[in-house]
Amino acid sequence: MATQPDNYYDIVIVGAGPVGLMLSTCLSRWGYKIKHIDNRPEPTATGRADGIQPRSLDLLRNMGLKSAIMAHKPARVYEVAFWDPPKTGGGIVRTGTWPSCPDFIDARYPFTTLLHQGLIERVFIADLEKNGTQIQRPWTITGFTSDEKADPEYPVTVQLAHVDDSSKTETVKAKYLFGGEGARSFIRDQLKIGITHKDPISYVWGVMDGVVKTDFPDMKMKCTIHSEHGSIMVIPREDNMVRLYIQIASSTDPDFHPRKTATEEEVQAHAKRILAPYSIEWERVEWYSVYPIGQGISDKYTLDHRVFLGGDACHTHSPKAGQGMNTAFLDALNLAWKIHAVEGGLAERHILETYEPERKDVAETLLAFDNKYAKLFSQRPDAASTAQATASGTHVNPDAKQSAEENEFIKTFKESCEFTSGYGVFYKPNALNYSPAHPAASAPATAENTKLVPGRLFINSTVTRVVDANVVHLEQEIPLNGAFRLFIFAGSVSSAAQQSALKSLAAGLAKPDSFYSRFQRKDIASVSHHERHNPHSKFFTLATVFAAKRTEVEISRDLPELLARYRDNVYADDRWDRRVPDAKAAAHAKMGFDQEKGGVVVVRPDGYVGFVCKLDEGDKTVEALEKYFGAFLKQ
Amino acid sequence: MATQPDNYYDIVIVGAGPVGLMLSTCLSRWGYKIKHIDNRPEPTATGRADGIQPRSLDLLRNMGLKSAIMAHKPARVYEVAFWDPPKTGGGIVRTGTWPSCPDFIDARYPFTTLLHQGLIERVFIADLEKNGTQIQRPWTITGFTSDEKADPEYPVTVQLAHVDDSSKTETVKAKYLFGGEGARSFIRDQLKIGITHKDPISYVWGVMDGVVKTDFPDMKMKCTIHSEHGSIMVIPREDNMVRLYIQIASSTDPDFHPRKTATEEEVQAHAKRILAPYSIEWERVEWYSVYPIGQGISDKYTLDHRVFLGGDACHTHSPKAGQGMNTAFLDALNLAWKIHAVEGGLAERHILETYEPERKDVAETLLAFDNKYAKLFSQRPDAASTAQATASGTHVNPDAKQSAEENEFIKTFKESCEFTSGYGVFYKPNALNYSPAHPAASAPATAENTKLVPGRLFINSTVTRVVDANVVHLEQEIPLNGAFRLFIFAGSVSSAAQQSALKSLAAGLAKPDSFYSRFQRKDIASVSHHERHNPHSKFFTLATVFAAKRTEVEISRDLPELLARYRDNVYADDRWDRRVPDAKAAAHAKMGFDQEKGGVVVVRPDGYVGFVCKLDEGDKTVEALEKYFGAFLKQ
Repeated sequence: MATQPDNYYDIVIVGAGPVGLMLSTCLSRWGYKIKHIDNRPEPTATGRADGIQPRSLDLLRNMGLKSAIMAHKPARVYEVAFWDPPKTGGGIVRTGTWPSCPDFIDARYPFTTLLHQGLIERVFIADLEKNGTQIQRPWTITGFTSDEKADPEYPVTVQLAHVDDSSKTETVKAKYLFGGEGARSFIRDQLKIGITHKDPISYVWGVMDGVVKTDFPDMKMKCTIHSEHGSIMVIPREDNMVRLYIQIASSTDPDFHPRKTATEEEVQAHAKRILAPYSIEWERVEWYSVYPIGQGISDKYTLDHRVFLGGDACHTHSPKAGQGMNTAFLDALNLAWKIHAVEGGLAERHILETYEPERKDVAETLLAFDNKYAKLFSQRPDAASTAQATASGTHVNPDAKQSAEENEFIKTFKESCEFTSGYGVFYKPNALNYSPAHPAASAPATAENTKLVPGRLFINSTVTRVVDANVVHLEQEIPLNGAFRLFIFAGSVSSAAQQSALKSLAAGLAKPDSFYSRFQRKDIASVSHHERHNPHSKFFTLATVFAAKRTEVEISRDLPELLARYRDNVYADDRWDRRVPDAKAAAHAKMGFDQEKGGVVVVRPDGYVGFVCKLDEGDKTVEALEKYFGAFLKQ
Repeated sequence: MATQPDNYYDIVIVGAGPVGLMLSTCLSRWGYKIKHIDNRPEPTATGRADGIQPRSLDLLRNMGLKSAIMAHKPARVYEVAFWDPPKTGGGIVRTGTWPSCPDFIDARYPFTTLLHQGLIERVFIADLEKNGTQIQRPWTITGFTSDEKADPEYPVTVQLAHVDDSSKTETVKAKYLFGGEGARSFIRDQLKIGITHKDPISYVWGVMDGVVKTDFPDMKMKCTIHSEHGSIMVIPREDNMVRLYIQIASSTDPDFHPRKTATEEEVQAHAKRILAPYSIEWERVEWYSVYPIGQGISDKYTLDHRVFLGGDACHTHSPKAGQGMNTAFLDALNLAWKIHAVEGGLAERHILETYEPERKDVAETLLAFDNKYAKLFSQRPDAASTAQATASGTHVNPDAKQSAEENEFIKTFKESCEFTSGYGVFYKPNALNYSPAHPAASAPATAENTKLVPGRLFINSTVTRVVDANVVHLEQEIPLNGAFRLFIFAGSVSSAAQQSALKSLAAGLAKPDSFYSRFQRKDIASVSHHERHNPHSKFFTLATVFAAKRTEVEISRDLPELLARYRDNVYADDRWDRRVPDAKAAAHAKMGFDQEKGGVVVVRPDGYVGFVCKLDEGDKTVEALEKYFGAFLKQ
């Protein structure tokens, strides 16, 4: 890069909403040169998206950004309440509640975090600035070309202009261009990529953030209120605020017009009618907006794997389930680590081809869910089935007395909760996500009968760090550093077979032509002994977990040198877990590993399981890992 | 105050270390006018105290300061390791470990937080500035007088001078003067208050903060290392740093001199000999100091209850148990709320007389503990007794095979852990802390058989907030706002008797001459409906906890209006607790309340239980509360 002109960038990112900021933040941290523009003069001042789902909070924590988010004292939604007209008489009554993230989901933070998008953006912007990336505002994209044949390294040429002064322009060269411009994407339009509308009906929504005085008892809960006067959705916010969503028009209305609007006062009057007999008065309105929205998915997320789209540019849907920002984060995260793997020399370029199918499939699920969720809302579950659906534990045994309909409700309910929490998002088999069709399937050490599912999130577990006895969340121990995470569940610390298996593993990894050694850091000789996660390679971080008490583990004695180098990532699986109350080694049990024999998990840089194999004496474990990584690493 | 001249203050605080900052922060928040000086030009730059004990972290959280502390990524000490010479041969071996805060202590944060004092000071200073208090540096006190007869309202006159320019002086008048100047207190000297040395032996300690390279396996744990070459104490710090304490001399040495010193290199060479066969090299030394220290307690903390001392000015001891800053915080907290209660017109002036006995007794315990702790260190517990002592649960059944000596060890161990964690700190009976000698003992509703002990901390419990379904820590729900906290454990939500008891309680509180109504806010008519904790009085905050599921509680139906006004402080006791796994209402059970009948707890503004009574139908509950408060409130 040092030899490239100033106007050459690794990536040009257009749009500094959630998707653009997440992408920019990851790539800035990993050392890339970024041109990031946004056509707004300032970050979001009021309104817009505000729901951070449980799994997104995990992700923000993994990036070290959670505490900055929580410092703003966001509202936390633990339950959703349903209000409907009573069977007789007027007004509204509460017909049920259910948890945002029920106990059957093993979440660290079983709530939705509600915070104004502008505050979230500022947390990312502060991080970007620490890493030397500034957002150029108010600038816009006016044109681009992408030609890999003409310039294989910097195939993209982008024209940029100042929003208010079109005489100010720049032309830059880049390896990639990313369109995170929202629903009205210039880049998508230029690429002539169409939008498929899953639901032919579109809506006009009014949304109002403000401080109210009311005797409605659930104003600090998320509520869906149906009345004979219309429907409203209530979402609590930070600083005593509340957001109300009101559907103003539907394309099924006889007089529908997508430009239909309503004044602030009209919406307030409407809300008063819906909430009656409860009263509501606004003390302050922070933000009010009316916007038409349909359910659509971009037909493609990229044409050439150099110019990519993500976030609202790819999928639009109703705001009801608070999924927009969360889906945007995951789009960006998915793309970020793949660009890093390719540009850092780790992976073959074809892994970029997994971005669109992985993320488009999630968007399809989101839209299908959006419809199902609406149906679920209108089903008005009875108390018994809700109670059963939300009961703790990962399995619910259907009661013999239950009707098939109730079971269907429970099933839908659970799938919906898992999906909205983010814990249900998963990726289908491909080179990165093992399946019996993967080349690694031929390796004898491949393990298919654990509770870890390739393409799904690594399971949360609590363990004790050996070196300092800290009780920690294992899934958070390796930060979002762009590296693959190898979790070695070592089983028994005292067994000769296990000791031998660890030695074989370390010896296999240490071979100069192993997947692990081939991508060594160039500066390996000068790496500080304090370097915790990437002493050998920027692309692999190792952690070892023994099914033993902390005091039984002696790092210098029980780990081969290569694994002992990760001394801060050695753990004792000795913490009791309510979900496996009888297990002696709860983390091993939750993963589905034998507490004597353990196993090895490869977790992708974004936290999704890639591959699971046995921890065997001899060469079989490394052989299986080689076959897994062989499917996409550079030779 | 508006009519007083500019140089009149509520309090002059000398010294901006932990004790002065805590006092200043509390009183600034509560609206007092403060002159706060420090003779250092800047806050602590390096070194000094650094251990925040579990209960102090609770306190910082209760003040809203915990997240700012944790943002600095402090080290967390969960265990202490003991290293001693082996039975045969040279060097050192690990002979045992034990937890900093074992499971039998029901702590939210079972670890010690290690962070450089300067960073902690800055968190307080930022908070002070938000409340309009600036620390005047570098200024010192040059003289003072206190004469309540001459000026009953502002009896204290204080002379101040700039440290570097004695021509700059100020004379100010104040209601109070506080000396938080550290061990060499000018104010204490002027008052001719002596120091009693509990242990006639004094020591010279060397302390060194730095970054090291070592193969010693426990460098990230707190360690006590005894070798034939001397002793050392290891305390991990933030930013890969470690603090080493080395005893350089003892007054029992034949050639002892309190000015004995050692160079940085000498101490490092000494440490290397002690740690052999492990190696240690310093990459960086951040701070190094040698200081003599003895065990002493100030004979008085005040002479006239206008000029007070606290922190190191009152007690000095070895740094081994990391108690200095924690004890300082509690000195200041104890005094702060009492000054507020007196000056705010709530309490009789005599409650100030409880400051010295409450805090001096804790200091005596600290020094006794300091000796006991040293003895405990040298006892080298065997593994079995340590395991037994640290076993979970609040009771340990002595094994029949155990010797009396082991039981003594366990007893000492537990007392020590409770004390060092801060959870064992308690205050003896007086007007504030109920006992059978208290005037309230004659009230029939007084409850003496709960698990809540007047003078001890309110027990931690987890409940669900009704209004927004948030799962919360009950003991943290009311912030450190200077108010007494009335926790009404209401028992059954559906029982007519309980409904009647709540109504009687509310009616009694609402009477114009009740302790609750007499101290109403003057601005009560204009208080915002968003005011959560102090809608009626600055000195009382109420919370109600039902032994019911959240969905069974309907605030407007189940609470009388006075209690319903605290709608954000209404809770459902419906969370499972591992410590009372079979309880249907875990918080009620932990407090020792019947889950049908409940009870009422008065918690002092500093979090210590003052009084417990039954929740009775009729007037008895209010009568008991009146008798309790009657012992110290203004009539």
